[in-house]
Amino acid sequence: MKALVYTGTQELVYRDEQNPIEVDGESILKVHASGICGSDMHAYHGHDERRIPPLILGHEVSGEVQNGKYKGKDVVLNPLITCGKCEYCTSGREHLCSERMILGMSKPIERQGVFAEYVSTPNKNIYEIPDGLDKNDAPIAEPTAVSLHAVLIGEQSLKKPLSDCRTLIQGGGAIGLLCGLILSKIKGNTNITLSDPNKLRLDECSKYLDAKFVAPNHKEIQSNSFDIVFDTVGLEISRQQAIEVVKPGGSIIHIGLTQPAGTFNFRKMTLQEITVIGTYCYTNRDFEQTLSILSKKEIGPLNWIEFRDLKNGGDAFKQIHDGTCVAPKIILLP
Amino acid sequence: MKALVYTGTQELVYRDEQNPIEVDGESILKVHASGICGSDMHAYHGHDERRIPPLILGHEVSGEVQNGKYKGKDVVLNPLITCGKCEYCTSGREHLCSERMILGMSKPIERQGVFAEYVSTPNKNIYEIPDGLDKNDAPIAEPTAVSLHAVLIGEQSLKKPLSDCRTLIQGGGAIGLLCGLILSKIKGNTNITLSDPNKLRLDECSKYLDAKFVAPNHKEIQSNSFDIVFDTVGLEISRQQAIEVVKPGGSIIHIGLTQPAGTFNFRKMTLQEITVIGTYCYTNRDFEQTLSILSKKEIGPLNWIEFRDLKNGGDAFKQIHDGTCVAPKIILLP
Repeated sequence: MKALVYTGTQELVYRDEQNPIEVDGESILKVHASGICGSDMHAYHGHDERRIPPLILGHEVSGEVQNGKYKGKDVVLNPLITCGKCEYCTSGREHLCSERMILGMSKPIERQGVFAEYVSTPNKNIYEIPDGLDKNDAPIAEPTAVSLHAVLIGEQSLKKPLSDCRTLIQGGGAIGLLCGLILSKIKGNTNITLSDPNKLRLDECSKYLDAKFVAPNHKEIQSNSFDIVFDTVGLEISRQQAIEVVKPGGSIIHIGLTQPAGTFNFRKMTLQEITVIGTYCYTNRDFEQTLSILSKKEIGPLNWIEFRDLKNGGDAFKQIHDGTCVAPKIILLP
Repeated sequence: MKALVYTGTQELVYRDEQNPIEVDGESILKVHASGICGSDMHAYHGHDERRIPPLILGHEVSGEVQNGKYKGKDVVLNPLITCGKCEYCTSGREHLCSERMILGMSKPIERQGVFAEYVSTPNKNIYEIPDGLDKNDAPIAEPTAVSLHAVLIGEQSLKKPLSDCRTLIQGGGAIGLLCGLILSKIKGNTNITLSDPNKLRLDECSKYLDAKFVAPNHKEIQSNSFDIVFDTVGLEISRQQAIEVVKPGGSIIHIGLTQPAGTFNFRKMTLQEITVIGTYCYTNRDFEQTLSILSKKEIGPLNWIEFRDLKNGGDAFKQIHDGTCVAPKIILLP
């Protein structure tokens, strides 16, 4: 089969690779479409010790099952592979399983990803694509589940309804836009500000989301003025802004992974009772709820997704890297 | 009146000061007893920009009311003075009021503290000492309310009961011991580890609390092994240990104020969905619940409190500073 292989820092090669082989309890998918995630970009930059080249990246995917009990079905994958037995798996928090594996990662066990014509997956990770969701759009289910989980965590952490909150979303990528769409269209949040240094990206997001769109240094973003902040960037500087602008008793939901560490104002966190929660996954229940949301088009049209050919995937990575690609999500088609 | 006045870094002078004057809506207390708090120590070290010398420190206090409607009553104070009108005050989160003042602080408005023979306080901050609570022990209500609020916040943040949790408490001062006693005696938590570098302090705490007592570098404290961590220290190094040892999906309750900033592993926080919550205050409801707890002796005897004369308060500060005082709480008697 053909696949886009991550061969080294900022290096992707479209080449022939071995087809996946049939394994008990797994199925092989002929890939319809596969989305590029921020964590794939993180690997591409050589910053992810869990993704070691050579490796086929990617974990957001839809396809047609080639064998086994789902044969012939159009499906989408939950790429989190978990043990099913531990305290997390048996209490509805499967995403925290210590044996968690993700497609397109080298650790804890190497699993080839979805930027390819075929991929193998455990049967229990397979979900049929519901009516109302296009098979090429379907990989968006994965980042939508990430965003839904982040919004639900934020909602639980607050002492007032999201609809009454002033909200800042840092970052206008897929997760930022999806958090905004869920907040706006499902949670009734009418006071959202989305910040990004890339003006082109702000303009693009403004076509789909009802919010204010500003640069990160805009006067709209003042100290102690947001009930909740979604940091989808994860830079030291974005975290420092988040703690500066969040209101007493407010929450910061931290979804970005760009800079792993850095200094932070723990004094304000303590004096003003700020809650900071990290998240980047979702439960099986969140994934199911996401499919229902997408099926009913509850977050509106998905025409902000841009499609590219898998064989040109390397160019897409380059353009995301240098900021010339403004689409919040690129999905590759083999 | 006599008062213990903070006159400069590591400098306290016992001297004559003006008596408080009568003010509408306030009462004057003849102080029975006043406790030394970690935040008073922080001021003593010259590290609190909200406490500027010369200033009478202290906010944990009991006394007899000298005038007005509570005249003759033995009372204890909630030292958080709030506006009563803002979104926080009207929703049961008075402690987050932006006009919050605390006795013994210079900002936002200077209010003299309780290390004195007399102190003035708004009437609405006065609570009668309940039966079963000794009037000299009563200042312990304040740090007990801090600890109760921290435990309740932790409980709300977790997805399982505190009684099923493995808990680490960093720091064997009053807040550490009180969190432990509330967890153990009220919340049924039977798996508590308390760490402190001061062996004398661990020995002292071990007389009152059912827990394991270890140095911070003990092998008992392993990576990813505690459901919840109470950091009552607030050093960069204690926060770094907290994030290292907390389990996936777990919580860190951050109560210490020793180092205001510092680096932190936000990557683990994000990948493992860790919740970090800062707190150092309590609601009026927490304060009332605390008085009920103390009245019913639900956290056991309070014989770990050490009493000193107010006029020797300077020596107590020195001994707390150099680690030779092992009592979790010192209360001064005028």
